[in-house]
Amino acid sequence: MTARSSERARIDMLARVFGTDGSGRTIVGIGDDAAVIAPGREPLVWTLDAQVEGIHFRRDLVSMADLGYRATMAAASDLAAMGASPLGILAGLVLPAYVTDEDLRAIAEGQHEAAEEVGTQIIGGNLARGQEISITTTVLGETPRPLGRSGAKPGEVVAIAGPLGLSAAGLVLIGRGREHEADAAPAVRAYRRPLARITAGLAARDVASAAIDVSDGLTRDVGHVARASGVLVVLDRSTLLTPELERAAALAEADPYQLALEGGEDYAVVVTVPEDRVPAGFKRIGRVVPPQDGKIGIAVEQTNGTLAWLDERGYDHFG
Amino acid sequence: MTARSSERARIDMLARVFGTDGSGRTIVGIGDDAAVIAPGREPLVWTLDAQVEGIHFRRDLVSMADLGYRATMAAASDLAAMGASPLGILAGLVLPAYVTDEDLRAIAEGQHEAAEEVGTQIIGGNLARGQEISITTTVLGETPRPLGRSGAKPGEVVAIAGPLGLSAAGLVLIGRGREHEADAAPAVRAYRRPLARITAGLAARDVASAAIDVSDGLTRDVGHVARASGVLVVLDRSTLLTPELERAAALAEADPYQLALEGGEDYAVVVTVPEDRVPAGFKRIGRVVPPQDGKIGIAVEQTNGTLAWLDERGYDHFG
Repeated sequence: MTARSSERARIDMLARVFGTDGSGRTIVGIGDDAAVIAPGREPLVWTLDAQVEGIHFRRDLVSMADLGYRATMAAASDLAAMGASPLGILAGLVLPAYVTDEDLRAIAEGQHEAAEEVGTQIIGGNLARGQEISITTTVLGETPRPLGRSGAKPGEVVAIAGPLGLSAAGLVLIGRGREHEADAAPAVRAYRRPLARITAGLAARDVASAAIDVSDGLTRDVGHVARASGVLVVLDRSTLLTPELERAAALAEADPYQLALEGGEDYAVVVTVPEDRVPAGFKRIGRVVPPQDGKIGIAVEQTNGTLAWLDERGYDHFG
Repeated sequence: MTARSSERARIDMLARVFGTDGSGRTIVGIGDDAAVIAPGREPLVWTLDAQVEGIHFRRDLVSMADLGYRATMAAASDLAAMGASPLGILAGLVLPAYVTDEDLRAIAEGQHEAAEEVGTQIIGGNLARGQEISITTTVLGETPRPLGRSGAKPGEVVAIAGPLGLSAAGLVLIGRGREHEADAAPAVRAYRRPLARITAGLAARDVASAAIDVSDGLTRDVGHVARASGVLVVLDRSTLLTPELERAAALAEADPYQLALEGGEDYAVVVTVPEDRVPAGFKRIGRVVPPQDGKIGIAVEQTNGTLAWLDERGYDHFG
């Protein structure tokens, strides 16, 4: 099937793939000028994220279904970081002429699968022609208590839910054609099918003082929390690796610590919480301390107890 | 100024341009994982629209400020068509390497001006690198009574608020370098600075049975209403032209009727209403009748009283 149907036919197809929202909150879905949602009583949380060909993904390294899945999870992850539950998703697709109906269906099926995985639906969006594929996803959610970046307090601990470094290792292994080796499987899956940690965000919502999702790398993203909160975050080096990451890093001939500190797109959620209130599903990876010599930011505690300061790393789209 | 700053510096600049929302409804704006909005009691209306370089605009024919303005209005217009008031806007910008900080500031100023014009603010978004400029805008609004496309009833009249054909004429005149002639001014302005008819949508909200905005052309967009409602819409040919359109069409050497019927991007709002309840600011342009010989769609009544059927025209992104 290499058909390239009209816009209307494609929208009809998308409406079939995306189905209807079972929440009862969606009053108008795909096919009108806008989606309509019944409001609740909680604050609305609203985010937008774009995945652009050649920047966020290489078409030769990701299937269309995985592309739709990843784009949806990347956006939903921002809601996890706010401790919010998603209410619905709109997706804007920019598609070059070579994208067939079959390709579009695969993208949509990936989007739908990801939306269902986090308990919501695609309820609208936009189709446009362009020279490169891009998927812009906006997610609306709600929470009684939005988690910000600026509330981390000295004395608290830093805890994480989700993998570190695995997605970056997976991308390297796919690029080298080693994705079918046994040690590659968890990393490849982490890259292709990341999970927005909505459940973890909800579990942390009532205890966390700050939260963020790891999209650009642990150092960079937790650095946002440290700067916004005016604190120093000290990571415990001994907690950052897992056997899965070590095996994948060995296969990728990469430093597992560097992957854990700088690898992005794992979409783990990192929170700061009182030491005795680490939520279920989270692992302690560090602590929050006052600024040292006026310095705020991130450091790693070495096995001998000294601190190694970390530069801000990770991906800057315009740097 | 041809600087190309880091992502963080650019986001700081955007936060300054966009300012803060005076409504008191925005709890968290630019700079966290997501925007947070206090909910009201009314249904939420939510739309997304993309403007892509080479498809929706030519960079040599539109300034960066106008680009930001038009992209914002195009998205806000969907809320006008639902009879909704905007609560906030998120904007996703995909920018090639050649886009300078000055260009970005101009885009943002255009977006900000358009948002203020319709009574709202840009409260978040996303920046990404890409090979071509695209702006994806999502607008959230609310209304006690969302207007759909499917409620038009025989016996009602069709009424419009806003221009017809002027934007298309303006684009032709800009392309031919005739934008500075006196007869071109209203058309050029209609193209560069279109207005989302939020006020008109609100005025029609409690009386209209159906509504749509004219983004792809009158025939095509009102055709959506006719098909969704299972009716025939008969346009009155004598009402479609204005002196401004006739003068601009003459200068563009174009048929003013064709511009009125097929020209897009005017963002007029078209509603169907009882004959005695045409809202202030709307002009009657036709009537709703039952299907004739099983046909639904659009026809134009000629001066001799016969009907000329209109094919669906307008822009199909994949046709």
